[in-house]
Amino acid sequence: MKNLIKKVLVIAGFSCLVFTGTANAEVSAETAYVFNTFSFLVHGFLVMLMALGFTCLEAGLVRTKNTATICLKNVALYSLAGIMFYLIGYGLMYNDVNGYIGSAALWNPETTVDSGDGYSKMSDWFFQMVFCATAMSIVSGTIAERIKLVPFLIFAIFLTGIIYPIQGSWTWGGGWLSEMGFSDFAGSTIVHSVGGWAALTGALIIGPRIGKYGPNGQVNAIPGSNLPLATIGTFILWFGWFGFNGGSQLALGSAADAAAIANVYVNTNMAACAGLVAALILSILLYKKTDLTFVLNGALAGLVAITAGPDVATPLQAMIIGAIGGILTTLAIPLLDKIGIDDVVGAISVHLVSGIWGTLAVAIPGLNGSGDIGTQIIGIVSIGLFTVILSGIGWFALKAIYGLRPSEEEENIGLDISELGMDAYPEFKN
Amino acid sequence: MKNLIKKVLVIAGFSCLVFTGTANAEVSAETAYVFNTFSFLVHGFLVMLMALGFTCLEAGLVRTKNTATICLKNVALYSLAGIMFYLIGYGLMYNDVNGYIGSAALWNPETTVDSGDGYSKMSDWFFQMVFCATAMSIVSGTIAERIKLVPFLIFAIFLTGIIYPIQGSWTWGGGWLSEMGFSDFAGSTIVHSVGGWAALTGALIIGPRIGKYGPNGQVNAIPGSNLPLATIGTFILWFGWFGFNGGSQLALGSAADAAAIANVYVNTNMAACAGLVAALILSILLYKKTDLTFVLNGALAGLVAITAGPDVATPLQAMIIGAIGGILTTLAIPLLDKIGIDDVVGAISVHLVSGIWGTLAVAIPGLNGSGDIGTQIIGIVSIGLFTVILSGIGWFALKAIYGLRPSEEEENIGLDISELGMDAYPEFKN
Amino acid sequence: MKNLIKKVLVIAGFSCLVFTGTANAEVSAETAYVFNTFSFLVHGFLVMLMALGFTCLEAGLVRTKNTATICLKNVALYSLAGIMFYLIGYGLMYNDVNGYIGSAALWNPETTVDSGDGYSKMSDWFFQMVFCATAMSIVSGTIAERIKLVPFLIFAIFLTGIIYPIQGSWTWGGGWLSEMGFSDFAGSTIVHSVGGWAALTGALIIGPRIGKYGPNGQVNAIPGSNLPLATIGTFILWFGWFGFNGGSQLALGSAADAAAIANVYVNTNMAACAGLVAALILSILLYKKTDLTFVLNGALAGLVAITAGPDVATPLQAMIIGAIGGILTTLAIPLLDKIGIDDVVGAISVHLVSGIWGTLAVAIPGLNGSGDIGTQIIGIVSIGLFTVILSGIGWFALKAIYGLRPSEEEENIGLDISELGMDAYPEFKN
Repeated sequence: MKNLIKKVLVIAGFSCLVFTGTANAEVSAETAYVFNTFSFLVHGFLVMLMALGFTCLEAGLVRTKNTATICLKNVALYSLAGIMFYLIGYGLMYNDVNGYIGSAALWNPETTVDSGDGYSKMSDWFFQMVFCATAMSIVSGTIAERIKLVPFLIFAIFLTGIIYPIQGSWTWGGGWLSEMGFSDFAGSTIVHSVGGWAALTGALIIGPRIGKYGPNGQVNAIPGSNLPLATIGTFILWFGWFGFNGGSQLALGSAADAAAIANVYVNTNMAACAGLVAALILSILLYKKTDLTFVLNGALAGLVAITAGPDVATPLQAMIIGAIGGILTTLAIPLLDKIGIDDVVGAISVHLVSGIWGTLAVAIPGLNGSGDIGTQIIGIVSIGLFTVILSGIGWFALKAIYGLRPSEEEENIGLDISELGMDAYPEFKN
Repeated sequence: MKNLIKKVLVIAGFSCLVFTGTANAEVSAETAYVFNTFSFLVHGFLVMLMALGFTCLEAGLVRTKNTATICLKNVALYSLAGIMFYLIGYGLMYNDVNGYIGSAALWNPETTVDSGDGYSKMSDWFFQMVFCATAMSIVSGTIAERIKLVPFLIFAIFLTGIIYPIQGSWTWGGGWLSEMGFSDFAGSTIVHSVGGWAALTGALIIGPRIGKYGPNGQVNAIPGSNLPLATIGTFILWFGWFGFNGGSQLALGSAADAAAIANVYVNTNMAACAGLVAALILSILLYKKTDLTFVLNGALAGLVAITAGPDVATPLQAMIIGAIGGILTTLAIPLLDKIGIDDVVGAISVHLVSGIWGTLAVAIPGLNGSGDIGTQIIGIVSIGLFTVILSGIGWFALKAIYGLRPSEEEENIGLDISELGMDAYPEFKN
Repeated sequence: MKNLIKKVLVIAGFSCLVFTGTANAEVSAETAYVFNTFSFLVHGFLVMLMALGFTCLEAGLVRTKNTATICLKNVALYSLAGIMFYLIGYGLMYNDVNGYIGSAALWNPETTVDSGDGYSKMSDWFFQMVFCATAMSIVSGTIAERIKLVPFLIFAIFLTGIIYPIQGSWTWGGGWLSEMGFSDFAGSTIVHSVGGWAALTGALIIGPRIGKYGPNGQVNAIPGSNLPLATIGTFILWFGWFGFNGGSQLALGSAADAAAIANVYVNTNMAACAGLVAALILSILLYKKTDLTFVLNGALAGLVAITAGPDVATPLQAMIIGAIGGILTTLAIPLLDKIGIDDVVGAISVHLVSGIWGTLAVAIPGLNGSGDIGTQIIGIVSIGLFTVILSGIGWFALKAIYGLRPSEEEENIGLDISELGMDAYPEFKN
């Protein structure tokens, strides 16, 4: 549980030192309970809204003929994530973790308050659940426009119920990576790279969209159909990220916690600002013109990059980390195109590439410098391998049993008609 | 006032039992005041955003020729609700309720703090006001595309100033239903069914849209024009519902309150997840294909269903309650179509059908089991009759005095041109 | 810093009077620290979302051929504002202000907690930063569709790094206007009028869009391309305004602060409601029909008008202030059109006209009556002159060095193609 209890004790000690000048200066135990719980809830509802952010981003970047389907996939995956995380995910991730996996017993939440508790268990569960959904939201963008609804939803069940929680137990559940000292504050690797690896594996197995590559291998741009929608999605993700990173402090019950969350907010914001500006400048340098999608992905890359260590960076370090994330993503997007990986929204470049960068940055002296680079690499590689292997098994099994792709004709007509029998914008001529 | 004061006293007693192990462990009176007030404000701003959720949902499900008008109706009804609830609504609902109605004296808010207060009266007012607006937002969706602007706005004044507050006084104002033990935590009946009954009455009196039914009575589907917009609306409603249900705990000033709100958040979320998945599965079973609008309405139905008792359910019970809501709504939507009730967005099926279900569920042993089924039925029926009768009087009076429907020609051109002289999407060919 | 420390002391004294009936009744120093900090963060993330509100409003009111560009301008200006406010803006505004300007030394934030602190410095910075971005968001709307990307972004750097912080230091930094008693609670003048003056200066220097005025000077309406988007923008701005005004109380660490914020929320909401309804009624009286854009701008005008004094008004006064704001804006929009000032979204009428009105209203007996009318005028005029002069220098310098407008051909094609080489809605026929 990200070692909340240990941290609370440390912080309690610290805050006693600071605020004991006057009588009754400190935060009472019950007041801290309320603060901690409310922090989980407020930051949790912000993260919940990220599901809408991903929906808008993806709905804006697909073609109109696949727009209703991508909306459906996104609301459905969020719902399946909630149910799976309740049924087995939370148990696998946090319940009696033996180093490598927890116990999948049905989660039986405590709803009563005990004086030993520092926060409501339910509020913590809510906060963890919305993280689980985020990982799957990343996948849906990359493989949009060419995967059938049912295998997609089954994979969502598998990722949110099995893959995400098991690897999550290694660090946040107190497992072997946690014991080694792997450091990933809010999940550059544990959430974003996991989504990115699963997306990459899917993109490789499913293959590119019809028409993405010409007969001689030339790359064809397939423009997104609704760029204001993609912009809305980016802003909502940015907004939700204050919850994603801020809430990962896991406590608000002391001045030290409140100050730490404030630092996280500022660093999160600055990394996004710098990622956007870096992508803007780089794209102008490279192509003479800029492109709205590069700029939006630059902001998201900055957010992903800072997510591993927003607590220990200074604002200036956060800007550097975010800017490098924005640059790497801006370079990765055309590179993936070139090597034949068709990522509809750029999610692999944003979440995997910048996620790896952010996780490494935690151990770079002069940036964060708070982790060990070898341990960070072990964490990145082991979580990556695990996710790729299990995702690969999942995708191949679904391919064999059910099939992943619609027929060529169905893909050309668009999934909205072929899968849902409807049109996202029936009155707008396409 | 949902018996806040009684509850605060009970909880204060409880929390003393729990947290008195150490000196100064409890929440001080002034700290509790701040927590309670801030809970009203944070949860209130979430509910306020539901007005945007309804706007997006409705704007996405009408045709482009009526889109600007539905946007205007929604922002205007929220504003009128605020003014009416200030001028007379709050008084009718909460001021010296004699069992059946309060006193309509202009609300004269206390702005100073008294040590006997547990929260800011203004913050409570803000939270109650946004609930009032919600009820009217439900109406606008059902009767969209075929009612003129002025009678719609006059009905909004009547519903938010008279109908909603008077029936609200019976339960939340401490009136006769409250004394009988009618249980409706956040308003499955008091908010959602009231909106649904008023919408149903309006739909019957106004009649279906031109073209909805063919010459031989066959039902014609009229697809919504912008499904990403409808998806955004659903997500924002879901987001706002954490405020709607969570804030209805009416206090955050103790560990017990914080834990209760956390339970409410989890149950709210799980009911929506299950409602969505149930509607998804059922629609595939019934029609071989699913439909995005069924799925969205399934989530909303889950939310409406859990609203009467999110505090007493377990997450598993919440999922069952939500799933049944999703199923009932998925069955009700085509049924209403068949019997000649034209509900543009499915609001009657979502808010009335699932609202009744949720209010009953509170009294079903094994689900919530915390209420009395007879009392619940009395509440549902009496509030329903009152709303239908007053709404009917309102609609008929408006029809007689002003007329409700535009001319056939105006309806065919669309209300945006005929009422506003503008086009919601002037550059997109229709 | 809006005299936070003085206020905290006053409030602490007050709250001691109120809550000392029982032992340990008051808020402990550390608890107050957490409340104050969390208020900055929660209200700050609300204000951050206003950047999305402006983006949607502007993207909905421009033509499709300029939509991607206005999205890009808005995300980029928010990012540049963050970076500039970090590098020099915060220093100029709050660091050792000598009456007229602060010190531009790189901001070196305190991240540790000291028992003398009442709140996290970082959280305050976050809250101030998002205000700075708001001022520039106002400018982008007025001069949309006819200014090139690069000079726009350079002006954004200049406004957010120099103009906004220097004039801000005069009041909120404790400078000469603050000492005179100029009263502007959350920035009717300091944020909204500053944006409005810079927008007006830009509109005059850049000139109207091609086609706005006919050969004989007749005014041509250029309708916005996506009115649901404009409606979403308005609602999000309204939502964010609870943070803008509520957070400007700058403290939540006492019952008195919590009650004050609740008053601010209610007044903010009521002013918007009344502004909307006033604009609705006036537009019907003037033109027989209403127009969605008038109504949306009416709500925004109400919000701008109450921003100077939401703490001291009663709800009834707030409604009057908001309604007058809505009326003035509804009259100003066609007037500006007539005198040749082409304001794409009506931002000058909303933010400058209603901003001046709101700042004056603070000193009108019977409305707020808490300020001195002469001082208010001095503040409005001095900040206006300063902003006009510096903005004028900036715009003229950019015009001379780089050029402000695209070529006539580029403007006709649209900035999306000519500047970005892309189309915001490539599949929707224009």
